[in-house]
Amino acid sequence: MIIVCEAKATEAQINAVQQKIREAGLDVHRSDGVEHTIIGVVGDRNRLDIAAVSMMPGIRDVVMVSTPYKLASREFHPEDSIVRVGEISLVGGREVTVMAGPCAVENEEQIEASAEMVASAGAQLLRGGAFKPRSSPYSYQGLGIEGLKLLRKAADKRGLSVVTEVMSIEQIDAVAQYADLLQVGARNMQNYPLLTALGQVNKPILLKRGMSATIQEWLMSAEYILTEGNPDVILCERGIRTFENATRNTLDISAVPVIKHLSHLPIIVDPSHGVGTRRFVAPMARAAVAAGADGIMVEIHPNPDKALSDGPQSLTFEEFGLLMNRCRIIATTIGRRLGKAK
Amino acid sequence: MIIVCEAKATEAQINAVQQKIREAGLDVHRSDGVEHTIIGVVGDRNRLDIAAVSMMPGIRDVVMVSTPYKLASREFHPEDSIVRVGEISLVGGREVTVMAGPCAVENEEQIEASAEMVASAGAQLLRGGAFKPRSSPYSYQGLGIEGLKLLRKAADKRGLSVVTEVMSIEQIDAVAQYADLLQVGARNMQNYPLLTALGQVNKPILLKRGMSATIQEWLMSAEYILTEGNPDVILCERGIRTFENATRNTLDISAVPVIKHLSHLPIIVDPSHGVGTRRFVAPMARAAVAAGADGIMVEIHPNPDKALSDGPQSLTFEEFGLLMNRCRIIATTIGRRLGKAK
Amino acid sequence: MIIVCEAKATEAQINAVQQKIREAGLDVHRSDGVEHTIIGVVGDRNRLDIAAVSMMPGIRDVVMVSTPYKLASREFHPEDSIVRVGEISLVGGREVTVMAGPCAVENEEQIEASAEMVASAGAQLLRGGAFKPRSSPYSYQGLGIEGLKLLRKAADKRGLSVVTEVMSIEQIDAVAQYADLLQVGARNMQNYPLLTALGQVNKPILLKRGMSATIQEWLMSAEYILTEGNPDVILCERGIRTFENATRNTLDISAVPVIKHLSHLPIIVDPSHGVGTRRFVAPMARAAVAAGADGIMVEIHPNPDKALSDGPQSLTFEEFGLLMNRCRIIATTIGRRLGKAK
Amino acid sequence: MIIVCEAKATEAQINAVQQKIREAGLDVHRSDGVEHTIIGVVGDRNRLDIAAVSMMPGIRDVVMVSTPYKLASREFHPEDSIVRVGEISLVGGREVTVMAGPCAVENEEQIEASAEMVASAGAQLLRGGAFKPRSSPYSYQGLGIEGLKLLRKAADKRGLSVVTEVMSIEQIDAVAQYADLLQVGARNMQNYPLLTALGQVNKPILLKRGMSATIQEWLMSAEYILTEGNPDVILCERGIRTFENATRNTLDISAVPVIKHLSHLPIIVDPSHGVGTRRFVAPMARAAVAAGADGIMVEIHPNPDKALSDGPQSLTFEEFGLLMNRCRIIATTIGRRLGKAK
Repeated sequence: MIIVCEAKATEAQINAVQQKIREAGLDVHRSDGVEHTIIGVVGDRNRLDIAAVSMMPGIRDVVMVSTPYKLASREFHPEDSIVRVGEISLVGGREVTVMAGPCAVENEEQIEASAEMVASAGAQLLRGGAFKPRSSPYSYQGLGIEGLKLLRKAADKRGLSVVTEVMSIEQIDAVAQYADLLQVGARNMQNYPLLTALGQVNKPILLKRGMSATIQEWLMSAEYILTEGNPDVILCERGIRTFENATRNTLDISAVPVIKHLSHLPIIVDPSHGVGTRRFVAPMARAAVAAGADGIMVEIHPNPDKALSDGPQSLTFEEFGLLMNRCRIIATTIGRRLGKAK
Repeated sequence: MIIVCEAKATEAQINAVQQKIREAGLDVHRSDGVEHTIIGVVGDRNRLDIAAVSMMPGIRDVVMVSTPYKLASREFHPEDSIVRVGEISLVGGREVTVMAGPCAVENEEQIEASAEMVASAGAQLLRGGAFKPRSSPYSYQGLGIEGLKLLRKAADKRGLSVVTEVMSIEQIDAVAQYADLLQVGARNMQNYPLLTALGQVNKPILLKRGMSATIQEWLMSAEYILTEGNPDVILCERGIRTFENATRNTLDISAVPVIKHLSHLPIIVDPSHGVGTRRFVAPMARAAVAAGADGIMVEIHPNPDKALSDGPQSLTFEEFGLLMNRCRIIATTIGRRLGKAK
Repeated sequence: MIIVCEAKATEAQINAVQQKIREAGLDVHRSDGVEHTIIGVVGDRNRLDIAAVSMMPGIRDVVMVSTPYKLASREFHPEDSIVRVGEISLVGGREVTVMAGPCAVENEEQIEASAEMVASAGAQLLRGGAFKPRSSPYSYQGLGIEGLKLLRKAADKRGLSVVTEVMSIEQIDAVAQYADLLQVGARNMQNYPLLTALGQVNKPILLKRGMSATIQEWLMSAEYILTEGNPDVILCERGIRTFENATRNTLDISAVPVIKHLSHLPIIVDPSHGVGTRRFVAPMARAAVAAGADGIMVEIHPNPDKALSDGPQSLTFEEFGLLMNRCRIIATTIGRRLGKAK
Repeated sequence: MIIVCEAKATEAQINAVQQKIREAGLDVHRSDGVEHTIIGVVGDRNRLDIAAVSMMPGIRDVVMVSTPYKLASREFHPEDSIVRVGEISLVGGREVTVMAGPCAVENEEQIEASAEMVASAGAQLLRGGAFKPRSSPYSYQGLGIEGLKLLRKAADKRGLSVVTEVMSIEQIDAVAQYADLLQVGARNMQNYPLLTALGQVNKPILLKRGMSATIQEWLMSAEYILTEGNPDVILCERGIRTFENATRNTLDISAVPVIKHLSHLPIIVDPSHGVGTRRFVAPMARAAVAAGADGIMVEIHPNPDKALSDGPQSLTFEEFGLLMNRCRIIATTIGRRLGKAK
């Protein structure tokens, strides 16, 4: 941490700052420039209230030299992390993992048909919501445990793993019993009690980016899980909120190379929620793979027009098959392999 | 709901749409314009998957005529709601309620000194965090139950009410035992299990706006509480996320007149979190009162430079006293009365 | 400027950076911390390509200690600037200046009626668009020179000054002939050839904030005018673009105290364009005055329902009169005087 | 256009609205629903002040059925437009066009070396700024006419076309003399006098998206050029402003499929300005091609560390060569051909 003093800071002000830092048990290293005095701070910054220092008289700016997250940073862990999901999938290595399925589990017929398509197209994980977070209390809220059972059964028949959302601490046990990868939705990215509880679970976590979360905040939320002892966090970009309203959100594809630079954690992209309209999903899925994402999560539905939830953004089976074929070649272009080995 | 068909929609497409609507148990009312056919839909829109309809072939646009929230809307409840908090405060009527106190409860001395100032300046509620949501797992997390007891004791001595945050379902009972007004933080605005549980509590709820929540989403979150039977919801604007970084957030003062137009619920403003810097708090608090807010929530601290949390945005006692005096006059200008009657 | 090296930066990398800085004619001041080496840079930073330095190997961060604008900064000019507009108005001192009038000049009758109301309510400047920037080429584009003449005549009869927009270099001479204050619209805030030309004009400039301009960029645009020799720049906040769509823009009232802190230039607020709806204009105008703005610019119209441009955001005469009365008291509360002395 | 009346609108209010519409020369078509009366409006909407209608008493909402742009819309022109640039390039068909070169033209040696690389890698256009829009008046402002001559000469030697920015009406003649494609920068996207003048030029225009422009506003700016008689407009996505600051802007890749849906105009992507950091440029260029962009514009520099402008975002020649090879395969995957035929 570096503290930049104002040009007109007095000696008394500078001394007061230095004393406050030493009281917190940190060391100071002073350097007097022509215009500004600079105070370097050495030690554990969590022992100091940085914001309070920044308001002391005579202080112009406080500059962070280290990142506020540690376990999630690439500095701490230079190699890419590879997260095992279920029996077979490794997310974050050479593979590009494909997760697909309906937005919500509706009934056995629908989830069986979806699972069949997911498997035959070479994807590795079956997705589907059993507990649904809905903006309106009047919207369809999901099948609950019954949905989890249908998902598990359909996946097991075809050698697929299961990813589904967990919305609250109460649901963790049930979801962990049936799913291989536990998803934290965008609205819960800063639900710290939930993150802390998931840090104590023995299953990997898929952490979606909050609708207006910076990449730094997202990594700090991952840190909540990592510090509790669960090392298996996969990040999922799903669109951020901007002024543009031609798409439901603005899918921030650049989060992929940025996360790869700042962190060792795998990152996948969910284009379906990012754009919200079927016709824009496939181009964005291709873009995600081309940008180097470790996976994509795509909504498909045997009959999108009749879906109970988010039907308009679900691909038909034909569209999904074509997308898989194209993404396979794009992945190869950058030295990766998409989907299940056949 | 109005469905606008494409200029080139076929008769078969239009019929398919009408049939889908009728299957959901709603009525249709068709009107053929020169360019576009328009289908009016009559009935309970929650029975229909609107997004799915909007993706049917031949459909150009689906226009909502009614709002997605009902109990929170002014159409449903034309008179301003007045919410009773504790023994004495009425939020939402002619009064402009002032809530003040430190960001976090740190120790008895601090909270007693703060409460003394809050009472003597004529404010009605004592605020202070006992459970703190922090972006970093390494930051100070609050005193918990001990903090709640200190708050209650300091408030009771001086005839103040207490407002404090509840972060999870597990904490509700404890917080409801000690506080008069239960605050839902910005990060939990879309934590639906929490909102549902708070809808069953017999205390008023202070619902902060999410960092990137639209006003409509905010009202829909209020609806979650209202539909469970708790009619006492107070909204709190605390800044939204924009590209501007000279302030921590952009305090959206215009949310005050917009909420007054769309809803009957009271709305207060928290300028401290909105701007994040002490020197900008007082001007924004004055602006909130001038714009017609039903209250303000301001952070104060007996010694801001030594605060454990958010010190830099806390007002000193002198600054707070001056602010109260000015806001009292501004409130009078628009026919209202700020702070406790003396 | 401070350069923070990476923890693992080599001596050769650090030397390369120091050499590049010295080649640009600046001095370096090195300081080796426990983890990071820090290089202080002394001299005129415009001689160095900062972005290029920031990409050199071994560099973690480059921190600006000084602001990128100079003439506009309060450091350079600690006293508030007071800008004379026309014969009588002083913007930026104790006065709170009111500018009012229709969005566009439509005809003599309309502008005479408006000017009459502006004067009788005690406002100082008459506003009205003669050249209109319109998003659509099919919208009403303004009366041009004829409109300028009508404005001037109506203002002169009543001792008012005139403010109106200039959209291109070609229009400067004509507008400067008739107006006392030349407005640069939000869309032109970064039209550098126009700003440079206005820096050579002998009239004050009203510089509106760009729709997505940061406060720093806004001050840098002011710097373009100031460096050319025109010291009379007044800033005008008019709303920024955010995800919220209940209002046309989000009026950033906090820009008022922030600008007061960073700069000596006067700042006024235009609530009409900020919110875009008549019913929200008065609360936001009051908020602006309460926050310490040096003036407000409000659209009024003798018959808003028949206005050719932006009618829905124009106040009626009655609404304007009530607003003036309330703002006068609010201004007094913070030691200022609004409108013409009577 | 559809006007939705309030549930409680009176007959007099509804009649007043209908009369206002008829006075403007349009037809009305009334339809009384169970809750709301709906008024369809038929005719040229530019004859009506829509905003004024929306504020009339008894009106709840005004819904646009047609887009505010016409010539730019795909409804008006269903086939993809193909724009000829210079002698050889066709932008918008099966080809994916590559434009590359330094941010600013600095000297003959630099531009010759750049042009050599552009040509040998198979790109079609040489880019380079001669007139530079800079946020700070103290930054490097470009070589002007001399730069244009260097660009033309270097391009002609190698069979390349030239694209460069024009910042003001005064510069149009000079730029049009030397360049094949005239670029309008993001800051000028709503400089209507400039757009109008460019609509009268006999050269194609590259219209960059404004930093905070919606896609609809962008197409309306294209409309300004098209209505003046110049049909050759190419759109260029270059990043929008959001709260995220890990990248300079947020490159909105989804603008590619959205524009393809709404308009017939070609769209290219500039990843260099979008991300602002060299290490993120190549992944985003690949993403743009995968999403279906008609071209990419990439900054390259023989020696990025010594560039006078935007060096940190320029690719080295090696990086550019690798990028071209990868993008060529990605383009093939979706049935297109990138770069010059060899």
